[in-house]
Amino acid sequence: MTTVTVWNEYRHERENDTVGEIYPEGIHTVIATALESEGFETKTATLDEPEHGLPEDVLDETDVLMWWGHAAHEEVEDEVVDRVHQRVLDGMGLIVLHSGHYSKIFRRLMGTTCSLKWREAAEKERLWVVEPSHPIADEIDEYIEVPEAEMYGERFDIPAPDTLVFTSWFEGGEVFRSGCCYRRGNGRVFYFRPGHETYPVYHDETIQRVLANVASWAAPNDGPTPDFGNAEPLEDIEMTDDRSVH
Amino acid sequence: MTTVTVWNEYRHERENDTVGEIYPEGIHTVIATALESEGFETKTATLDEPEHGLPEDVLDETDVLMWWGHAAHEEVEDEVVDRVHQRVLDGMGLIVLHSGHYSKIFRRLMGTTCSLKWREAAEKERLWVVEPSHPIADEIDEYIEVPEAEMYGERFDIPAPDTLVFTSWFEGGEVFRSGCCYRRGNGRVFYFRPGHETYPVYHDETIQRVLANVASWAAPNDGPTPDFGNAEPLEDIEMTDDRSVH
Amino acid sequence: MTTVTVWNEYRHERENDTVGEIYPEGIHTVIATALESEGFETKTATLDEPEHGLPEDVLDETDVLMWWGHAAHEEVEDEVVDRVHQRVLDGMGLIVLHSGHYSKIFRRLMGTTCSLKWREAAEKERLWVVEPSHPIADEIDEYIEVPEAEMYGERFDIPAPDTLVFTSWFEGGEVFRSGCCYRRGNGRVFYFRPGHETYPVYHDETIQRVLANVASWAAPNDGPTPDFGNAEPLEDIEMTDDRSVH
Amino acid sequence: MTTVTVWNEYRHERENDTVGEIYPEGIHTVIATALESEGFETKTATLDEPEHGLPEDVLDETDVLMWWGHAAHEEVEDEVVDRVHQRVLDGMGLIVLHSGHYSKIFRRLMGTTCSLKWREAAEKERLWVVEPSHPIADEIDEYIEVPEAEMYGERFDIPAPDTLVFTSWFEGGEVFRSGCCYRRGNGRVFYFRPGHETYPVYHDETIQRVLANVASWAAPNDGPTPDFGNAEPLEDIEMTDDRSVH
Repeated sequence: MTTVTVWNEYRHERENDTVGEIYPEGIHTVIATALESEGFETKTATLDEPEHGLPEDVLDETDVLMWWGHAAHEEVEDEVVDRVHQRVLDGMGLIVLHSGHYSKIFRRLMGTTCSLKWREAAEKERLWVVEPSHPIADEIDEYIEVPEAEMYGERFDIPAPDTLVFTSWFEGGEVFRSGCCYRRGNGRVFYFRPGHETYPVYHDETIQRVLANVASWAAPNDGPTPDFGNAEPLEDIEMTDDRSVH
Repeated sequence: MTTVTVWNEYRHERENDTVGEIYPEGIHTVIATALESEGFETKTATLDEPEHGLPEDVLDETDVLMWWGHAAHEEVEDEVVDRVHQRVLDGMGLIVLHSGHYSKIFRRLMGTTCSLKWREAAEKERLWVVEPSHPIADEIDEYIEVPEAEMYGERFDIPAPDTLVFTSWFEGGEVFRSGCCYRRGNGRVFYFRPGHETYPVYHDETIQRVLANVASWAAPNDGPTPDFGNAEPLEDIEMTDDRSVH
Repeated sequence: MTTVTVWNEYRHERENDTVGEIYPEGIHTVIATALESEGFETKTATLDEPEHGLPEDVLDETDVLMWWGHAAHEEVEDEVVDRVHQRVLDGMGLIVLHSGHYSKIFRRLMGTTCSLKWREAAEKERLWVVEPSHPIADEIDEYIEVPEAEMYGERFDIPAPDTLVFTSWFEGGEVFRSGCCYRRGNGRVFYFRPGHETYPVYHDETIQRVLANVASWAAPNDGPTPDFGNAEPLEDIEMTDDRSVH
Repeated sequence: MTTVTVWNEYRHERENDTVGEIYPEGIHTVIATALESEGFETKTATLDEPEHGLPEDVLDETDVLMWWGHAAHEEVEDEVVDRVHQRVLDGMGLIVLHSGHYSKIFRRLMGTTCSLKWREAAEKERLWVVEPSHPIADEIDEYIEVPEAEMYGERFDIPAPDTLVFTSWFEGGEVFRSGCCYRRGNGRVFYFRPGHETYPVYHDETIQRVLANVASWAAPNDGPTPDFGNAEPLEDIEMTDDRSVH
């Protein structure tokens, strides 16, 4: 059974009435509840808990980590970022949501600024499926419509995705690569764009369907754990003079 | 005219007789001389110079930076790494050579450990061209043979390259993705495997041909510099209630 | 439950004693039996059956088609190739084995010659896993060793794979992209190199493990079936003069 | 010097007044003239010429072929398609324009249906640069605006591009991968979306800038011509019993 830990900054919900009304118990609770109904084991963790709710033992029991952050990326301790980064390279799935594009962990894994254009105008977004055979598009129609969204527009400064699943159209005239798959180390990373805190996006059943699909896709496989470092030859080598300086 | 700055750790050449005999003036000098004969403007920089020879004004005049490091990666100041990283994202080409796979700048750009298998047994390497239409393969035969090489073997913990140009065969039984193209930000990055300090690899004309091809490929283009941040709509939007929390 | 149809040219086994001793009931029977033990529903089909054993109703009940052919590619009717091609684009998985690289269906899907270097010298092959997090590498070690193989070497004239899972090392000095993933239409395609008829490759449990992994990966998903053709606008358009010439 | 042959179906211009007024001498003439002013050697060829204007000797002198077709794809002789296909695999660049997505040569090279959504409503298109470091984006702003365009929308049934340079936004609510790079054999292929015959798209200087960039990118390189077929070993092989059945 796959265990998903949903991490949330959990500040806006407590400090802003609009957000608080939409997510009274936090974005993480809505997502975790939705995933449980899809058969996932879930945990939640938030910024203001000790070690941001992500001590070693929690990560030990986590197959897939979802990450929602926005205003407090810099408050996330580097030690925790290092820990999560290592777990991803070891095989843990990571799903980065919406404004998490600017999180330390996503920028660390991408190696770029992850900058983009943005606008808050309650405009319409339409996420088009460009790779319908991908499991993340299971049971999704040709597009997902989000009636009111914050706009994110290209240029999105990321490495070209290994697989691009969704591309967004925005009412104001922009496009965006809004569903991006990556492999990093032994782990899988997915960036999913929707989810501004002032709109009830994570209450949407189709969005919840995508999150469940992503969690299934990102779960660790049982592939080989590579050996790194000095390796004995597998074949006979015609040795010449040894020039090792190690 | 393209200006290439060749950066070298420049320690082995001064501390080890074998290496000193092969590269009496340093690996950087041999590479820079070869590139000049191909019509490039060149500069060199080394670890023990102030700011490792890479102050702002040197990078301002650098189109493509080549990087050779091995034993002293940790001595490279983070401030210089930050500076080089930003320049790559701004469009400067970066060519990472051999043991530079473990350099701070390459790991920063890849987001992974960049670990691999290695062995020093003076064994034969054969780099096969798998993408013959790529400009980096210009004037190269189907494979490049390196008679004595340090082995690097898979698993090489890197993101899948945007384009894989070379794959290496090793006498001892391993394979390796030895010529890897990436785009990061507005810059291009190429990893090229050959170049262990105890073999005269950079004196080889074919290897020099590849380095010149890579320098041409990695040079900055004149594409758009993206605007990031808050963006005005390009089309009329049916505004609903403003819920901005910014 | 996933249904796999194993297609085999089934000529060498009946005409050549060496092959007949290794696969008395044909390569297809050995593969189908192995997949059944892994929980797949299986069918088999061969060249000399009516419609090559692939009439509409067989393909209707096929989730994944495996293809082994070698000496009689040109005897495969174009009508059957058209039919299989359409099914792949509609979502059926296709797994092309070994000398199937030259089959009409694989060349049709790739758009290239799919040519390569080859040699029959009973030499050693070692398939290295370069993407350990891919489900096709599940329960596989860092490499698979094939003691006696026909060599296939680069340049392999294929489009760059969407994902490269295996790269082969050969005793005679070549490398080869030996496990290649593609998406075409709504279907998934995998090319897997091992399987020369004169060696008992498909009796090997590790090879059988890979085939089962590939069959699971290639099975159709439940993504959207795109609408193609003339589309009504989803948004109001400021129509100018109609210049339709259709 | 790069020689570009611009191929055009050249029917609409002669049969439709609207089109004839925009391109009195044909789309091919406008494109060829624009490329000449950028320093390219150019030729033109049209459907109704013998061998569609593409006999062996014309292709022998062609580095890059541009292809515009729309209503008469089926009238293109398979023999000519075979010839062009072979030249692309041998290294000739191919640039497929707009409705050429349905040409025999593009579908042959892609291996898919190349189907899409379309609509003629004189609506606005905005092509966003998603890979600003690519040479095809040289001297282009962040987006190109086409005031009146035929809409093409996803799902575009193509293999995922090796590099995606442009993504289009349409007034009516769709998105489209409108600038797609591929390598096939030793040749490069680029699909560029704009160009409906009823709008003066190819008179636009920015569009002409892109076509010149693409022609430079697609021109043949001087990489290795692979040897295919039976290959002698490069290393000694411990031969076991010969089981060759060839």
